[in-house]
Amino acid sequence: MAADDDTLLVGVDGGGSGTRLLAQWHGRCVEVTGGPSGLGLGVTRAWHAILEALKKAQQALGLALPTTQCRLALGLAGANQSSWRDAFLQAAPRLAGLRLESDAFTTLIGAHQGRPGAIVALGTGSVGEALHADGRRSGVGGYGFPSGDEASGAWLGLRASRHVQHALDGRAAPDDFSRALCEAMSTLSPAPVTCAATLTHWLSSADQTRFAALAPVVIQHGEHPIAQALLQQAGEDIALMYRALDPQAQLPLALCGGLAHALEAWVPQGIKQQLVRPHGSSVEGALRLAGE
Amino acid sequence: MAADDDTLLVGVDGGGSGTRLLAQWHGRCVEVTGGPSGLGLGVTRAWHAILEALKKAQQALGLALPTTQCRLALGLAGANQSSWRDAFLQAAPRLAGLRLESDAFTTLIGAHQGRPGAIVALGTGSVGEALHADGRRSGVGGYGFPSGDEASGAWLGLRASRHVQHALDGRAAPDDFSRALCEAMSTLSPAPVTCAATLTHWLSSADQTRFAALAPVVIQHGEHPIAQALLQQAGEDIALMYRALDPQAQLPLALCGGLAHALEAWVPQGIKQQLVRPHGSSVEGALRLAGE
Repeated sequence: MAADDDTLLVGVDGGGSGTRLLAQWHGRCVEVTGGPSGLGLGVTRAWHAILEALKKAQQALGLALPTTQCRLALGLAGANQSSWRDAFLQAAPRLAGLRLESDAFTTLIGAHQGRPGAIVALGTGSVGEALHADGRRSGVGGYGFPSGDEASGAWLGLRASRHVQHALDGRAAPDDFSRALCEAMSTLSPAPVTCAATLTHWLSSADQTRFAALAPVVIQHGEHPIAQALLQQAGEDIALMYRALDPQAQLPLALCGGLAHALEAWVPQGIKQQLVRPHGSSVEGALRLAGE
Repeated sequence: MAADDDTLLVGVDGGGSGTRLLAQWHGRCVEVTGGPSGLGLGVTRAWHAILEALKKAQQALGLALPTTQCRLALGLAGANQSSWRDAFLQAAPRLAGLRLESDAFTTLIGAHQGRPGAIVALGTGSVGEALHADGRRSGVGGYGFPSGDEASGAWLGLRASRHVQHALDGRAAPDDFSRALCEAMSTLSPAPVTCAATLTHWLSSADQTRFAALAPVVIQHGEHPIAQALLQQAGEDIALMYRALDPQAQLPLALCGGLAHALEAWVPQGIKQQLVRPHGSSVEGALRLAGE
């Protein structure tokens, strides 16, 4: 069902670090950003961030519509968890339309313009999702830190931190890679990381975001045997995700997220011919769903 | 310096899950247990647990001595962190003697009866420590969950959980090993783990203790290619720790902790001839230090 002319179409991409909102009114589009709206942070906080961003977008468009004239499609982190999902939908204001999906699904819709395809999103975490020609959807990964999230930034950083551990206690020789990791760790906390004790302290307070901040160092040191092995494993893990999403390997695969570009080179040959650039972003995918 | 006859000698082994205390009076010994006294839980709580256990031990021996007649040596988890260490020592009551070490060091002293040697402790976490013939000490590992703790229970469980993730989303075929892991996970939480969503929920609330509870399943399924690869890697990691502790490979190596026996079989040949059984426990090591 297409939205009529008096409806503000709104797409939202929300996660633990922020919200992007794209609003469309009579052919005009604005994009605004706001605070976190991942459902893991609480339903009230998520709705607050979304409605604040909606207000901002209306201001930019010179509008002041009631929510009953707004049609929202949302791709939110945590939307797969049913209790969070139910609570979020229950707390919704009256709207012209509401559709809630995971941010992985809106990323998929944005990347392939709503057509069949597969994505592997590679940011702090990782997740894969596919839309098949028969309308069927499949998903893989998305289990989270620290056990899952293969090929993600947190995954790379967590594993790379082991090289520093080994370099500082004699299990490995210190080298440029371990020193660069120490330096990056030191800029991420008040205390410099110089020995096993300061490293233990850093590690004990590091979460997935902090580990993910080490991923660029791994990519920069891709020639180092340990970094290389990690990046190769990341490429294999991306291929494994794709093969689980589409065992016949017929769907185009778009790598999305902050690490997509850097990891493209590490995808094994057999999968490389399936790679396509994502057409659009998650928030664009959400806006497309709002207009359906 | 040997303790005189009117001193109660007390050894303490304390961690995050409990305290063991061994008290010796005129040749008689009692061992008692108490609440957690790892320094990570706070200095006040640690002293409370220790002094309660001391009271219990005195009752068992029929004594009621003031602390000024007690000579304590403690092997406590977290004693390596200097701020915790300082705070703990400052909060001490007046004693006939006080020595604070890490539980890794008292494990080492217990295992080799105070003589030169090396240990790798394999419990929920892992750590290695050595006392050299010249009195020098060296340590390795002990960086904690989730980035370190190689070959530990939490390390095995965390990695094995990936097989379940893959079996539940199509990256691997479900098999006896994945089913056994699911079953073990289900007994560790109110909700049974049957699909990707319930697994995600389990993983999001699992800490190192819960992951470590999966280690016996890995050991039982040692013939499964994934379990076998993990156990082999654990063996290699133990060897790497030993070689960092003692590059000349001259010290006897005792594996300690709950997984020591099961992982012995996976230690590579080159290291196997160094293996010895630990003579005594961490609390026995602490008592030995109290008597020095």
